[in-house]
Order: sequence, then C-alpha cells, then structure tokens
Amino acid sequence: MATPRHFSALARRSTEPPISWLMKLALDRTDLISLAAGFTDNETLPVEEVRQIMRDLFQRSGAARAALQYGTSVGLPQLRQEILRRWLKQDQITEPGSPITSSDVIVTNGSQQLLYLVTEVLCDPGDVVLVEDPTYFVYLGIIEAMGIRAAGFGSVSSLKSKLESLKRGRLLPRLKLLYLVTYFQNPTGHTWSLDAKRETVDMVKHYERAAGHRIYIVEDAAYRDLRFEGRDTPSFKTLDPRNERVAYTNTLTKPFATGIKIGYGILPPALMRAVLHSKGNHDFGSSNFLQTVLARALADGLYERHLPQIAAAYRRKRDVMAAQLRTSFSTSARHEKPPGGLYVWLELDPRVKTGLKSRLFPRALDAGVLYVPGELCYCSDPSRAIPQNCIRLSFGGPTIQQIQKGVRLLAGALE
Amino acid sequence: MATPRHFSALARRSTEPPISWLMKLALDRTDLISLAAGFTDNETLPVEEVRQIMRDLFQRSGAARAALQYGTSVGLPQLRQEILRRWLKQDQITEPGSPITSSDVIVTNGSQQLLYLVTEVLCDPGDVVLVEDPTYFVYLGIIEAMGIRAAGFGSVSSLKSKLESLKRGRLLPRLKLLYLVTYFQNPTGHTWSLDAKRETVDMVKHYERAAGHRIYIVEDAAYRDLRFEGRDTPSFKTLDPRNERVAYTNTLTKPFATGIKIGYGILPPALMRAVLHSKGNHDFGSSNFLQTVLARALADGLYERHLPQIAAAYRRKRDVMAAQLRTSFSTSARHEKPPGGLYVWLELDPRVKTGLKSRLFPRALDAGVLYVPGELCYCSDPSRAIPQNCIRLSFGGPTIQQIQKGVRLLAGALE
Repeated sequence: MATPRHFSALARRSTEPPISWLMKLALDRTDLISLAAGFTDNETLPVEEVRQIMRDLFQRSGAARAALQYGTSVGLPQLRQEILRRWLKQDQITEPGSPITSSDVIVTNGSQQLLYLVTEVLCDPGDVVLVEDPTYFVYLGIIEAMGIRAAGFGSVSSLKSKLESLKRGRLLPRLKLLYLVTYFQNPTGHTWSLDAKRETVDMVKHYERAAGHRIYIVEDAAYRDLRFEGRDTPSFKTLDPRNERVAYTNTLTKPFATGIKIGYGILPPALMRAVLHSKGNHDFGSSNFLQTVLARALADGLYERHLPQIAAAYRRKRDVMAAQLRTSFSTSARHEKPPGGLYVWLELDPRVKTGLKSRLFPRALDAGVLYVPGELCYCSDPSRAIPQNCIRLSFGGPTIQQIQKGVRLLAGALE
Repeated sequence: MATPRHFSALARRSTEPPISWLMKLALDRTDLISLAAGFTDNETLPVEEVRQIMRDLFQRSGAARAALQYGTSVGLPQLRQEILRRWLKQDQITEPGSPITSSDVIVTNGSQQLLYLVTEVLCDPGDVVLVEDPTYFVYLGIIEAMGIRAAGFGSVSSLKSKLESLKRGRLLPRLKLLYLVTYFQNPTGHTWSLDAKRETVDMVKHYERAAGHRIYIVEDAAYRDLRFEGRDTPSFKTLDPRNERVAYTNTLTKPFATGIKIGYGILPPALMRAVLHSKGNHDFGSSNFLQTVLARALADGLYERHLPQIAAAYRRKRDVMAAQLRTSFSTSARHEKPPGGLYVWLELDPRVKTGLKSRLFPRALDAGVLYVPGELCYCSDPSRAIPQNCIRLSFGGPTIQQIQKGVRLLAGALE
C-alpha cells in the first residue's frame, strides 16, 4: 500500500525494510530454514551469565533500585568507562597518551540507533554518503528514507576515483560521511586491513580541502568481537589521534545477548554534541537497567569469558556451511571463509539471478529455504549496474543441521 | 558552541534539550534539591517485583534464552496482547465490538520514541502541529529540530479559533497533527474531560475537509496510570471506533520502573505502516528482554498490584507539596492539586519572572533548589506572548523532606 501523500517526505521515501519483510516470511512459515536473518546462535546465549548478574544485582536493593531508575541521555557512567577501558585495550592504546575519555562515549539502543543519529545530524536530503559495494542493507534503508544520494565503491582504489568524480561533479561539498563496516563485513565477511584504513584516512583528509568541511568516517565495528580466527586489526579510530574525524560505532548486543539491545559509539566532540541533542529528542537515554547489566558483564569479565564460547560455536557453523557449499555447489559458485562474523557471501555464475523477482528466490522458498538476495545490499548508485548473482547466507541463527539442509535445498533450487 | 554549518538542518535547528541541561545542573551539584526532573519515586521502585520476575524467568532456560534473543520491529506478541487487553479494560471496551487488535499495537523505547516516530513520518519542515499551551517541553524539542511550526492553544474554544485562523491563512493543508497530553498533563496537571475530547474530535473532523487530508490526534496518555484520586476518563481512542484518526501513546516506564524503558502505541493502520518502516531504520525493534519482563509483569498482575503503592506515595508527596506551597507562598501564587501525575503548576504574581534569564532562577539555584521555568513549556507561537511567571514543580523524585525544604527555599529566593 502506498504511503499517504500528506505524510512526510521521509515516510514517502521509506519502503518496508527488507529485513522486516524477510523476518515476516520466516515467521509465517515455521518450517522454513532461514539463512537470511542475522540472528545469533541460540544455544550460546548467556543464560547462566545473565542469571548470575541478576542474582548479584538483586542481592542489594540499593543497586537494584538504581538500575530501575532513569539514567541520562549519554548513558551510564560505569558502562561508558568499561566501554572505554575495553576499547583502549582492544586497540592497544595506553590511556595517558589518548585524548579520548569516557565523555566521548555514548550509549544507544543498539549500534543501529547510533547509525541513524549520526546520519540524521550530518545529512540533509540530496547530500552524499559513500558506502561499500555491497554494504549493510539496513543502513541503505536509512539513506533511502533520508533522501541521501549514495555512492558505492568496491575497493580503496575505486574509492579514489569516486572521490575524484564527486569533485569533478562539484558534489564534494555535499559529501558528509563514509559508512564502512570494517570487520567481517555484512554481507561479504571482508575485514579492512590497517593499510587500507590508512590510505582511506589520507584520502579523506586530502579531499576535505575541496569539500570545505570535515568528512566523517563512520566505522561500524559491529562484528569485531565475533572473531574466531587470526588477530584483531586496529580500528580506524586509532588513525584519528585527535578525535576529530572518525565515529567509531560498536554493539554489545550481537556478541552477548541480542535481546539486550545496547550499542555505543566513540565520537568526535562536535558530532557528540549534535548526536546527544538528537538522542534527547529520540528517547533521552537508553534503558538504565540494560546498561547496568552490561556494565556488570564487562566489569566482572563475564562478557570477555563468553566470547570464546560463541567464537567456537560460530567457527563450527561457518566450517559446516563452507563444507556444505563445496559439496553442494559447482565450482562456478565462489565464496570465502570469513575468520569472523555471521555471513558467507556467495557469488554464483554471473548468468544466474538471485533477486526478489528472480526465478530462484521463490523456488528456494518453495523448497523451504530463505536467503538474502545480494541485490538488496547494493546502494542505488546509477554509475554502475547492481550484480544480480550474489547471495548473503548467515550461519549465525540456524543449527548445524539446518545449515547443511538449507544449503542443500538452495543448491537443489538452483538446478 | 554552535553546530557546524555542514551538519544537517535538523542538527542546526536542535539546541541542547532543557531537560539534559537541567539534569546536568542537578548532577553537578549533589546538594541541590531538584524539583525539576520528572523522575519517579525511588522508594516505590518495584525491586521485589522485578526480582521475582527474574527468578521465574531464569528458572526455565528456554524462556530465558527466548528473552535474550532478537525480537521483531513491532514488538513481542505476548506484550502487545497484554497491552491491548489492559487498554480494552481501561477504556471499558468489550473486545468483540472493537476493530482494534494487537496488530495495531507497537512497542517502542519509551513513549518518547513513538512521539518522535509519529512526528517524523507525518511532518516536513514548515508543517504545522497544534499543541496545548503550555505542553511537554521535550516534545517541543522534537518540533524545533524538525523545523515544524507550532501553534499553541489554551482551551477547546481557543482551539477552534486557532483552526479558523489556520484556515484563513491557508495553512490547514500543512496541519498534520494535534499533540495532546490528556491525563495529568505535563506540566499543568490538567486532565481532559470526555466532553472536551468529543468536541475536539468533531472539530478536527470538520477541518479535515478544508485540510484535504486526515488530521491525526496524538494522545499522549503517559500519566494515565499515575492516578491517585477519582475515576479514570475514557481516552480519545474511544472516540475513534474505526481506528483512523487517533494515535494513542502510553508508557509502562513511569508507572513501573523508569530504568525499564518501554512505551507503546495503538495506531491507525496507515500510520502504523509508516511508523514501522521508520522504526526498522531506527533500531528494528526494542529490547526483547525488557519486553519479556513487562509482558510477565502485566500477565502476572504484578504491574497492576504495583500501581496502588506508587499512587499512595505520590498522593502523599503531592499533599506535602500543596501544603508547603500554601504555607510558604502568598495568596498571589496559584496552583491546583492534581489528582494524578507528577507535577504541580505554580502561577506566580504576573510581575514575577521565572525564566532561565530571570533573577529568580539563579537565586533559587544559589539557594539550592532547581525548578523548570514555565517559559520552557510554551511553543514558539508568535501570535501570543509567553507567560513569564510560571513554574513546573515535580513531586515525583524528591523525598518528602526535600519537597518541604525545596518549596521553602524557592519561596525564600522569591522574596
């Protein structure tokens, strides 16, 4: 149904987010194996950990009472300190040398809300945002709703030519931010190298002169804590020692409990101020109770100790998915084995179409398996055609058996 | 500090919300008695109730696990059913006769988020919203950020002349909604009568013809469950039997635990669709864990049984505040005794100024008491002057002793 004409431009630009639509499909057909939603593993949810936190919290009525009272817009001080401490350790920054303090940390309703806030305070309709090709499709929903022009780039070298073409088209003054999913990217599983980050920061600095203003790098590190192989790489934020250009966003939701929806950001002061004003209008602060739970999970080490458990579960699931893909699909289907995250990106023969209107999508549904068509992960940048032959598969939510059967059913539907 | 020029129009229109500023003042001066923030009573927070819910929830790992997993954008089905059941009972609607089902119920991060979403999907910059004079100042922050023109009205009869003047000014097509706080209003404590509601609905229907589109009534019933005297009155929603014009918003946060931030709305289908799309972009759903806690609190009757406790506490506090106001203030200061809610609206001698830039405000701060200047509660409607002699006092958060002392200090500062 069309949005009424007297609704706002934002509402008229918004379409049903594909994620809602896909989730509804999955809910309506309980027999369906969903390799679509970015759900997390059900078995490793921290039931025992949260039980213990609750037991401790409710042992002292004063502490419980404080958790049940209002907090402030920016978030619980203890949680923001724990977040800062953890980030400094993760990025191997020794505290005295860093200008960043817990006053640069904001807590939000998942990192999704922070992506919304940052974009809302920076972008007007007609402004330009640079995104990876492909990228996180819910972010594309924000771009669409806000009437932002998106430009996609596939590599650091194509980023350079994108920036050049924006400059030639006198669009650089409208470029407000780069949105980058830098660890085990949704949907490709790709992780940015430090060299690529360095090159990108240098490039952004260079083009800021022609833009006439700061160009922000919004680093979405939502999957960083879901690494199950190899070593962590430093964030973009480490390349922003004066805290002026990089908005680092992350979540405590996916690596711990998806039902406890808390994300956070480390923001340059000017951006922090604007985001806080807007957060004041959105909800004047995230649940103090949830923030208390997570502050305890971080302080007690429960969060940290939980990570190896989920890493083991996801590694196993990824291995099963990769093995089943090798068995069930011909050599013309390509995929990589990501060392973290929740997704495998499957590139089929270029002649195969996977989109919502393709023959494959309904056939797969009929067979009993749901996937995310790759086309949903590309922004509407008219300067290039959207690849039609890709699929995002998630190994986070389904069981081992569902992964095996789901991939088999998908391969069968393809024949 | 000014918002950078390359930030969005929304960010440039946004100022620091007075609530954040007042909260920070209160936090910086721990000796300060705050009669400003709409905090709730600390002593009656449902520590025992939530402890019990947690104990029950974590007894069955399956139930706990479900609470710790993702939910959907619209909210937890059990909670939405409980909300509907409660609303039907509260408004004495017998279920078979009502076209409204739980699919018309959405769950949000407090009712504040829903107010943001509804306004965002209906209003473009330059559109018009009608609000009460005075009204909830955080909603005025939304209006300001979105570049909406606000028109204030003081009574149903002045609403009629407002609508007429919008019609004459050809602004009716830009009028999108009326925002009304209908129970123990923030800040005046006023409750709408059913007659006034009926008259308003008729008026709105009448002017919709000239507007050329639906004009929504957004009924903010956030304080409805905080009644401590008298009988409940039917909502605006009862006057919208076909569910097409009234967006009913309410919260489970203030009457239960403010740290558990969950609000809800009952929305006409067209509005629901647009709000859901936008909620998908904001955060694709509120915390499933908090929703589970509240679904249990409602289903087990814990929520309902908690209400008389807080009603008793607030009644006592209101009585103390009213008595102290009578003792400490001269007869030229007027106030009413609201039968619910958290606020007393104090009208001082018209020659006294109470604003942020008045002499009284800093003197009261120096004396050790913080209040909300009444001027913050008026929209910027150029057709009338903003009264300068009013004060919003909250009796929710402070203790009995703090209320007594705070009012005395305020009276002292006035001398």
